[in-house]
Amino acid sequence: MEFRRVADILKNGQPEEAVVVKGWVRTKRELKGFAFTEVNDGSSLAGLQVVLDSDIPDYEANLKQINTGASIEVTGTLVASQGKGQKIELKADTVIIYGEADPETYPLQKKRHSFEFLREISHLRSRTNTLGAVFRVRNACATAIHQFFQEKGFLWIHTPIITASDCEGAGELFTVTNFNLDKLPQDKEGKIDYSQDFFGKPAYLTVSGQLQVEAMAMAFQNVYTFGPTFRAENSNTSRHLAEFWMIEPEMAFCDLEGDQNLAEEFLKYIFQYVLDNCPEDIEFFNKWINKSLLETANNIMSNEFERVTYTKAVELLEKASKKFEFPVEWGIDLQSEHERYLAEELFKKPVIVTNYPKGIKAFYMRLDEGEKTVSAMDVLAPGIGEIIGGSQREERLDILERRIQEMNIEADSLWWYLDLRRYGSVPHAGFGLGFERLVQFITGMANIRDVIPFPRTPDNADF
Amino acid sequence: MEFRRVADILKNGQPEEAVVVKGWVRTKRELKGFAFTEVNDGSSLAGLQVVLDSDIPDYEANLKQINTGASIEVTGTLVASQGKGQKIELKADTVIIYGEADPETYPLQKKRHSFEFLREISHLRSRTNTLGAVFRVRNACATAIHQFFQEKGFLWIHTPIITASDCEGAGELFTVTNFNLDKLPQDKEGKIDYSQDFFGKPAYLTVSGQLQVEAMAMAFQNVYTFGPTFRAENSNTSRHLAEFWMIEPEMAFCDLEGDQNLAEEFLKYIFQYVLDNCPEDIEFFNKWINKSLLETANNIMSNEFERVTYTKAVELLEKASKKFEFPVEWGIDLQSEHERYLAEELFKKPVIVTNYPKGIKAFYMRLDEGEKTVSAMDVLAPGIGEIIGGSQREERLDILERRIQEMNIEADSLWWYLDLRRYGSVPHAGFGLGFERLVQFITGMANIRDVIPFPRTPDNADF
Repeated sequence: MEFRRVADILKNGQPEEAVVVKGWVRTKRELKGFAFTEVNDGSSLAGLQVVLDSDIPDYEANLKQINTGASIEVTGTLVASQGKGQKIELKADTVIIYGEADPETYPLQKKRHSFEFLREISHLRSRTNTLGAVFRVRNACATAIHQFFQEKGFLWIHTPIITASDCEGAGELFTVTNFNLDKLPQDKEGKIDYSQDFFGKPAYLTVSGQLQVEAMAMAFQNVYTFGPTFRAENSNTSRHLAEFWMIEPEMAFCDLEGDQNLAEEFLKYIFQYVLDNCPEDIEFFNKWINKSLLETANNIMSNEFERVTYTKAVELLEKASKKFEFPVEWGIDLQSEHERYLAEELFKKPVIVTNYPKGIKAFYMRLDEGEKTVSAMDVLAPGIGEIIGGSQREERLDILERRIQEMNIEADSLWWYLDLRRYGSVPHAGFGLGFERLVQFITGMANIRDVIPFPRTPDNADF
Repeated sequence: MEFRRVADILKNGQPEEAVVVKGWVRTKRELKGFAFTEVNDGSSLAGLQVVLDSDIPDYEANLKQINTGASIEVTGTLVASQGKGQKIELKADTVIIYGEADPETYPLQKKRHSFEFLREISHLRSRTNTLGAVFRVRNACATAIHQFFQEKGFLWIHTPIITASDCEGAGELFTVTNFNLDKLPQDKEGKIDYSQDFFGKPAYLTVSGQLQVEAMAMAFQNVYTFGPTFRAENSNTSRHLAEFWMIEPEMAFCDLEGDQNLAEEFLKYIFQYVLDNCPEDIEFFNKWINKSLLETANNIMSNEFERVTYTKAVELLEKASKKFEFPVEWGIDLQSEHERYLAEELFKKPVIVTNYPKGIKAFYMRLDEGEKTVSAMDVLAPGIGEIIGGSQREERLDILERRIQEMNIEADSLWWYLDLRRYGSVPHAGFGLGFERLVQFITGMANIRDVIPFPRTPDNADF
C-alpha cells in the first residue's frame, strides 16, 4: 500500500479505504480508552485527524511518544468523521514513530508564537499553520508566473548573478571576491590589484537582470528573468531584504501600451491562479492575517486598470481635497500617500501611471516627445501601493548615448548594451516586480522576512 | 492585424492568409526584379522566407537596408513556397525597417563563426542558429523540470544564495562583503572586524541549497530547489563555471531506493519533454553538433536503469579485460574511464551506482550497516558520464554528530541542521544535478560556456 498525502485524503478519501499517512504530529488529545492526534504533512493547511483506540499494538508506549513535532506513520482505515470541521478521519491499526520531539525542548508548542520568534527558528517555522500556508502560496505564485509566460511563448532566461557592471549606483552593491581579505594583493602604486581577483576586476552581485535580458529579447523577442537580486542597503525595515527574487519580462517590438497590457494581464492571472489553487490557504490569510485580502484580490481581478499619465495624476492630486504630508508639484517622485490616494480613494481600483519626468527615472527609459518625460510606468494597486515598475526602453542609439552622458553613467561596461541599438535595434519594453512583495500582497503578511524561507537582512545570514 | 511569431506561421500558416511578422534579417538574395530575405524572430530555428517584389513601396531603398542583422517588419500574404525546405513563404506588401545593421561592422555575418569568437559577443550570439537552439532547449529543460516536480506535488523552494555557513570546504567559496576593501575596519587585535560587515560575520555565495532544503522537506515532505550556485574554483576548463544553476529535490519519508526511482523517472521525463517540444532544435544538434545525441537520448528514455552497488561495480571493473589508466581497488573514487566503461561498454545503458565508501563521500550521507559505506548514489549515462549525485541523508542524530566529528566539519553553524534530527526526524533522501551539464548533454554542446547566456569563469564577468 503506497502512502498518500493528507491533502489527497481530505479531498478524495472515502470511508473504508485502507491508507497509510506519514507526517508530523500537530496535536494530541487523550480520552478514556482512546486518543486523537492531528497529523500534518505540509500538503495542506488542515491535518488529518487520527483516532487511536487503546487496543492497537503498543498503545501506551506510542501515546507517550506522540507529541507535537514527532514524525509518525499511521496505517488504518478511513471513517466518516463525527467531529466538526472534517468529513473524514483515520482509524489507526498500527503506528510507527520515526522521530520524537521532546515536549520540554521542542520550540513549537501548541500556542501562538510571534513571527519575530519564529524567524529565529526559520528551520522549523514552516511547520506552523501560517508559514506553511505562506510557502505553499509562494510556490503557487512561482508556478503561475512560469505558466503565464510559457503559455505566451516567453523564454525563461537566467541572467548572471555576478556582474562587473555597476550602472545603477555603487552604494547598494555587494562585492564578490575570491581574495583573502587578510592579504589583499597590491599593485605597484599600492592599490588593490584586482587583476589578481577571480574575475580580474571588481565584481558585484546583480541588482537587476534587465540589461542582459534585453540582449536576449533582441534574439527571442519575448523573454523573462526569474532569479535572485541583491541590495546592500542597510535598511532594517519590514519591506527590505538584502536578497530577493525578481521577475523581469522583456518584449521586443513592444511599446509602453503593450507593456501595460502585459502587466495588467499578468497580475490578474497570478491572483486568479493562486485563488484557484490555494483556496484554503487564502481563506486562512483572509481570516487571520489581513481581512481585506480577498477584497483586494477581487478588485485587481475584476477591474480594468485605470491608465493616467504622471502629468494628469499630478493634476488630480493637486485638485484633491485631501491634505498630503508631501506637497504635490510636477516633477516630484510620487510618495506612497499619493499613490494610495489615486488607487484607493480616487479610482478605487488599480492604476497605471505613465510618462514620468525624466529626472526621476533611469537612463535606459525611452525619452518621450518634448523630452520632458520618459515612457515609464508604475502599477499601483489598492491596499498594496506600487507593485510593478516598467518602461519602454530607449532604442535610439544617439539619444541613449546622450542620456548616459547627461546622467553621468559610467559607460565603459555598457559597450555591449549600446551594440543592441547599433545592430537591428527595435522598440522594446518590459517591467520588473519583486517576487517577495508579490507574495506579501497575496498573503497579506506584514513583514517581507516572513515570505522567504531564510531571509537575509543586515546582521543576519543564519541558516 | 496582430503580428504572429514565425514558429506559428511555419506550423499553422495557410496560403492567402494576411500576416505581419517582425524579426531580424538572416540572409538576403537579390535577383532580377525581386529579392528573397529570411526573417528569424527566435521562435524557431527556421526563419520565414520573404519575397520582395520590386513593385513594393521603396523597394530599392528598403533593399539597401535589408542586411544581415537588421530588424524589419513585413506585412503581406502567405503563399505556398516553390523553394525547397519550406512549405510556405511570405509575399511582402510593405516593409518597415526598424534598425539597420551595418554590414561593415556587424560581427555576425553569414559565415561560420567559432564558439570562442561568439563568446566574446555573448550579447549577440543568441541570434545564431546554434545558440538560438541552445537557449530554446535550455528553456524547455527548465520548464520540464518545474512541470515534473509540480505534477508530483513538490514545492519549489528558494534556498538562500548568501550564506554564513562554510561546511563544504572553504577553498571554493566566493566571499560576499559590503566592505570598502580599501578601508577594512579592524578590531582591537588588528584583525578584520567582521561585526561591521553587512551580515555581521563573514558571508559567502552558496555552493548548494541542500542543507536548507532538507529543513523544508521536514515540513512539506517533497520539495526542490532550482537556483544558482557558485564555485570559486580556478578551473579554466570546458566543464566548469563559477556560476551555474542547480536542481536539488529532497523527499521526506524516502530511502535510497525511492531516490533512485525519482532520479530515473526525472531523467526520462526531461529528455522526453525536450524531444517532444523542440524536435527541430534537437535534430539540428544531432546533425551538426553531436551525431550520437538521439541515440543517447533514446538509450536513457527506453532502458530500465541498471542498479549496482559500488562494491559490485568495483568487482566488475576488476574483472574487466580493459586496461584502465587509474587502477581499480575498493575505496577509490571512480574515475571517468571507470564510469564510462560501466555505462557504455558493460551495461550499455544508464547505471546507478550506490553505497559508496564513506571516506569519499559527504558527512550528511546515511551510514550503512557495517559502517563501511554510505547510502550514496551516482547516476551514470552512456555518452555522458555522471549526471546526478544523491544520497539518503543521515537522520540519526547520534551518528550524524559522530560523523561530523570524525570528518572535522565545523559544526557551529550547523546547530539548526542537527535540530532537524532532534525534532521529528525522518528518513529522507535527495539528489542534485547541475542544470548546465544537463543542457550540455541534451544539446551535445562541448563547452559548458555555450549553454548559459553569460558565462562566469576565471577572468570573465563581462556583460
